[in-house]
Amino acid sequence: MTSQISAPHERRHVTNTQVTLIQIDNYGPWTVTPEPRREVDLQTLQSRLYADLSQLFGNREGYVFFTRFDNMVAVTNGLDSDAHALIQESIGNRYPVSISLSIATDPSPASALGTATSQLQDAGSAQDRGRTEILRGDPIPETERGEDDVQIAHFDVNDATGKYTDQLNEFDSFINIEQGYAELMQYMRRAQDSLSFFVGGDNIIVVCDAVDESGYFDAIDHVREAVDIELKVGVGTDRTAQAAGMAAKHALEICREEGVDVVFD
Amino acid sequence: MTSQISAPHERRHVTNTQVTLIQIDNYGPWTVTPEPRREVDLQTLQSRLYADLSQLFGNREGYVFFTRFDNMVAVTNGLDSDAHALIQESIGNRYPVSISLSIATDPSPASALGTATSQLQDAGSAQDRGRTEILRGDPIPETERGEDDVQIAHFDVNDATGKYTDQLNEFDSFINIEQGYAELMQYMRRAQDSLSFFVGGDNIIVVCDAVDESGYFDAIDHVREAVDIELKVGVGTDRTAQAAGMAAKHALEICREEGVDVVFD
Amino acid sequence: MTSQISAPHERRHVTNTQVTLIQIDNYGPWTVTPEPRREVDLQTLQSRLYADLSQLFGNREGYVFFTRFDNMVAVTNGLDSDAHALIQESIGNRYPVSISLSIATDPSPASALGTATSQLQDAGSAQDRGRTEILRGDPIPETERGEDDVQIAHFDVNDATGKYTDQLNEFDSFINIEQGYAELMQYMRRAQDSLSFFVGGDNIIVVCDAVDESGYFDAIDHVREAVDIELKVGVGTDRTAQAAGMAAKHALEICREEGVDVVFD
Amino acid sequence: MTSQISAPHERRHVTNTQVTLIQIDNYGPWTVTPEPRREVDLQTLQSRLYADLSQLFGNREGYVFFTRFDNMVAVTNGLDSDAHALIQESIGNRYPVSISLSIATDPSPASALGTATSQLQDAGSAQDRGRTEILRGDPIPETERGEDDVQIAHFDVNDATGKYTDQLNEFDSFINIEQGYAELMQYMRRAQDSLSFFVGGDNIIVVCDAVDESGYFDAIDHVREAVDIELKVGVGTDRTAQAAGMAAKHALEICREEGVDVVFD
Repeated sequence: MTSQISAPHERRHVTNTQVTLIQIDNYGPWTVTPEPRREVDLQTLQSRLYADLSQLFGNREGYVFFTRFDNMVAVTNGLDSDAHALIQESIGNRYPVSISLSIATDPSPASALGTATSQLQDAGSAQDRGRTEILRGDPIPETERGEDDVQIAHFDVNDATGKYTDQLNEFDSFINIEQGYAELMQYMRRAQDSLSFFVGGDNIIVVCDAVDESGYFDAIDHVREAVDIELKVGVGTDRTAQAAGMAAKHALEICREEGVDVVFD
Repeated sequence: MTSQISAPHERRHVTNTQVTLIQIDNYGPWTVTPEPRREVDLQTLQSRLYADLSQLFGNREGYVFFTRFDNMVAVTNGLDSDAHALIQESIGNRYPVSISLSIATDPSPASALGTATSQLQDAGSAQDRGRTEILRGDPIPETERGEDDVQIAHFDVNDATGKYTDQLNEFDSFINIEQGYAELMQYMRRAQDSLSFFVGGDNIIVVCDAVDESGYFDAIDHVREAVDIELKVGVGTDRTAQAAGMAAKHALEICREEGVDVVFD
Repeated sequence: MTSQISAPHERRHVTNTQVTLIQIDNYGPWTVTPEPRREVDLQTLQSRLYADLSQLFGNREGYVFFTRFDNMVAVTNGLDSDAHALIQESIGNRYPVSISLSIATDPSPASALGTATSQLQDAGSAQDRGRTEILRGDPIPETERGEDDVQIAHFDVNDATGKYTDQLNEFDSFINIEQGYAELMQYMRRAQDSLSFFVGGDNIIVVCDAVDESGYFDAIDHVREAVDIELKVGVGTDRTAQAAGMAAKHALEICREEGVDVVFD
Repeated sequence: MTSQISAPHERRHVTNTQVTLIQIDNYGPWTVTPEPRREVDLQTLQSRLYADLSQLFGNREGYVFFTRFDNMVAVTNGLDSDAHALIQESIGNRYPVSISLSIATDPSPASALGTATSQLQDAGSAQDRGRTEILRGDPIPETERGEDDVQIAHFDVNDATGKYTDQLNEFDSFINIEQGYAELMQYMRRAQDSLSFFVGGDNIIVVCDAVDESGYFDAIDHVREAVDIELKVGVGTDRTAQAAGMAAKHALEICREEGVDVVFD
């Protein structure tokens, strides 16, 4: 009994997630100055900026999530300050807008993002014209990095194509997926201090605070009961987001092949 | 009394929204064949494909929304079948995946998308390897196009930067915005047969079925009561998505300047 | 004899090429301010700007050539001033640099570009910080456009893969292709008032002043004698660059199939 | 005398350039199958592929040159086989075409590229449908890398804007720049075993085989005498292309400020 209690307790401290908050500087005002810019150009700008950040962080084993597009969240274990500075410079060289970056680390991804957010808020408002290209926070020293620093869970919806895409009005498929996402994101935030991101299709990637198997079953049960969406999940743990995320994808493939709901890689 | 009843009734038939459903062919299987592809590459692919479609439709006065990225929704009044075919060909020339397109028109955007979805489902499953580059449906003949065919409503959150971005953990800001979006999308779908799309930041663009002023006040009230998010909205109506959308943006600027919640351009 | 003399004379006036000079505003100084920017970012910026212009003009039946990247040349028959303004605005919305555009028309592409260049030079230096987003010149009125306004010739090198790519040091293959291009561009400029652009591989696209068959044979002979490179060419004529260029490609396919050097579509 | 002879001899062995030849697999046939693809899409594809490679290699301190676009040349000191494999995979995940890579090292960049070319030719023709995603050759072991492995020379044309861009028909400016480039590329290839690449504007970057100051003066003299184009050059030497290239840019700035023709960083 003791070991069962202490094991999850120890697990809680196993991850050490380095999170970077990416914020476009003074973006809202820019989009309507001198008058509203064409929406198609804003959409193009935002999605390409995200694509480029995805490559810039991804080439260094990190993951970026688009979130609100003007604020994005990255998992950046393994990226030092120089790498962040170079990414910031590269975007500044290629876009009409600049970005600020704030780095923080914590076993809990939500706490790490909380710290990263505060650091940036302390530097000024997101709509302060004078607050540009901030780079705050300290990456994990190389010597303190561990093999289990990042836990990534990759969820998808059971038979989404058969049950939704091939059956419903596309907007109703989308509402279903969104509802599942909305429930999962709130549940994982509240119950597990973890950050959930929709990544397209019927896929949700969650950056987790060393959640154990029962934690994932609880999450799946919760979403099923709340909005009647059936999820499954593959989980990977590694030194970097890239390695953990790929392990999670392989685990999810095993879910598919074996018809089970939770697989740890 | 009669006129009050008949006016909304007439209004209901004023729009004539041409909607195009865009679906990546056989995308799910492709992402895991022969084994799972790197997530950063998938994210790059999806967001660039969306950016390109945004330009391809946008250069012809259309709007595209990313929705689930593997299924996207466009408002395409003014684009004929040749324009659709050229867009389809251009994507096929530049991406490792192809797209299918299905076009339908209705006063109600939701009904139009329903028809577009059915047409594509009739052609085969989204994961049928043999069902590629479908192009179905009939654009509105040029002679039947009208000045009020498209109504676009552009919502944003009151003081989102001051109340959320500059105050909360970025993930909690995001949860708030998402909750507001989830409520609005379901309300507008159910009450107004209209399609709502999150477009980044705190912005939601709704493709509407000739909603009148009280309809927008109701929607704002609903979201405030359900999740305590305060919205405002600018509304534009025109022959094309581009023109209606730009009118809506200008109307939203008037909301900001004058501190009112609903402005029709 | 008379007819032989008069025929080419009449031909000379058959084309009416609308050319647009595209110039990045104040680009040189920008690349080294406040200190030299990373070359990989400049290369990315330049090539993506070209890719976007290729799509923006291409979606309106135009062609763009990368030329020096900071100065590009487009063939824009069918694009009016509004289309040019929208392209200029779209680039301004998405890049850290802006572009100036100057439009001119002439039977001779070289003369049209000369006029377009002068118009822009009159507006100020390419490195004048105050000279930004110039839009000068008059597109051809729709009523004056004709079926033969644009002549495009698509050259390639005979068996370039077999003789060069699969045999030589890649740099020596490249030197050979470059030599062929350098000779052709000067010959076509001098003898035919025509503009030649390398477009990758072993392909050169020439925007021509109604050159006849003997003119193309002369050009091929000249390049063979000067630098021992064997070319062939397909020629297309139409209302727009897109249509003429596609006709030229089809004609070049016939050259390949039938083993002949010059084919008019 | 002895020292004069031995000094250049020693210099000759100071660089150790790792070169990667990048070749799009079976590209020529693809561009015309089943029939010729739209030129604007090919131009977009090629220039974006180059932009992406520029970032993928650039994020690892390498340089890529577009050369013929279907064959590109990279300087890749510091990139191991895994990095090459990842770049190859990332392109395969995002483009309708794949790339082959061949790596070789030599004090002479031209010899390195020769070896890289032969390795790829041995694997099959550039137009062999079965020869895809080849990865050949051995990167320099980390232990054998030195501080002076890469020498980069950055040339530009004296007062190109004042003498050409602001004075001549843009095509004649372009012909002048091209002539200067054609002379320099052949001279540096023949006299110095070095590889010259036009990178836009009036800029040429040369990957050099430990050329000394007199070698650069000779090159400048040669181009002036042959085609009356006045060049200047900044030279940098370092472990990677990125570091050497940035040093060269700074040296070129000193040329500008001090009005001299050759500066070593």
